[in-house]
Amino acid sequence: MKYGIACFPSKPLQDKANRLRKRYDTHYSKIPPHITLKPPYTVEESEWKVKRNHIRTIAAHTPPFPVTAYKVDTFHPKENKIFFKIKQHETLQSLYEALNEDKSQKEKAEFTPHITIGQDLQDDEHFDVLGRLNMKDIHYEETIDRIHWLYQLEDGTWTVYETFLLGKEE
Amino acid sequence: MKYGIACFPSKPLQDKANRLRKRYDTHYSKIPPHITLKPPYTVEESEWKVKRNHIRTIAAHTPPFPVTAYKVDTFHPKENKIFFKIKQHETLQSLYEALNEDKSQKEKAEFTPHITIGQDLQDDEHFDVLGRLNMKDIHYEETIDRIHWLYQLEDGTWTVYETFLLGKEE
Repeated sequence: MKYGIACFPSKPLQDKANRLRKRYDTHYSKIPPHITLKPPYTVEESEWKVKRNHIRTIAAHTPPFPVTAYKVDTFHPKENKIFFKIKQHETLQSLYEALNEDKSQKEKAEFTPHITIGQDLQDDEHFDVLGRLNMKDIHYEETIDRIHWLYQLEDGTWTVYETFLLGKEE
Repeated sequence: MKYGIACFPSKPLQDKANRLRKRYDTHYSKIPPHITLKPPYTVEESEWKVKRNHIRTIAAHTPPFPVTAYKVDTFHPKENKIFFKIKQHETLQSLYEALNEDKSQKEKAEFTPHITIGQDLQDDEHFDVLGRLNMKDIHYEETIDRIHWLYQLEDGTWTVYETFLLGKEE
């Protein structure tokens, strides 16, 4: 089964993101606005429990951390993906590295925390949307105190399987 | 903010439901296939913590319970809603009653656990779909060991806020 790990920003920031995603993001109906902490990966049923406990341990040893969305940016030319860029933070980076031990040092160093608001647009529309959004001020600051382990259904939609509170040895 | 409480059936049952929901359920993109345990209700920010701890306590005192989806049914004429009917179970009924203390005895007694697969269809299509689905055998049996507390965004989509494991004093 395909799993992923993400955190959800607050309702006001999610509402802001969804007003844009509705029009510009092909994944709008697949998952609520989120910051990906571990991209889709496969977990066999036999390893499920070990993997789950591992995430739980990582979460318990990670304090809540601040999330600041401060600008609109794009992954172009690598990908036509528009997003709210999240200010890098030591705790967020360590959390990402702990959850993605299987990745190379280079991949881990290149982590760009973001909330996607548009993807799969043609170049013309991509730059048009980006240009218009870049003229607006974006500033949200909040604290993330939980992460979510999700699995993917065959139609590409995601269901939350479990929530892990940060910094809590439950 | 609007909250709700639900449990998600297993991926195979969710996949089965979503193949139908995609075509027949106007709420398909709002939330994954689920069994509603408490319909949308408002929680003020000041009561948030008490409400959260209350659900946590109820979950801790509820053992995991079996869920059996055994037929396709409808709420017509009350509502054109088609669903997988879930066999009533003492634990599920008690859980529902505990989570809905604010409701009348009558409302609590009328709880019909279900997974919606179609809604808001015109009478013609409603009965056509119902007739076709009724000819097929439906039988899923599984165990639910967690419930989810969700909140609603302004566009009607739902985000899981927290998962509570059943029967676990964490």
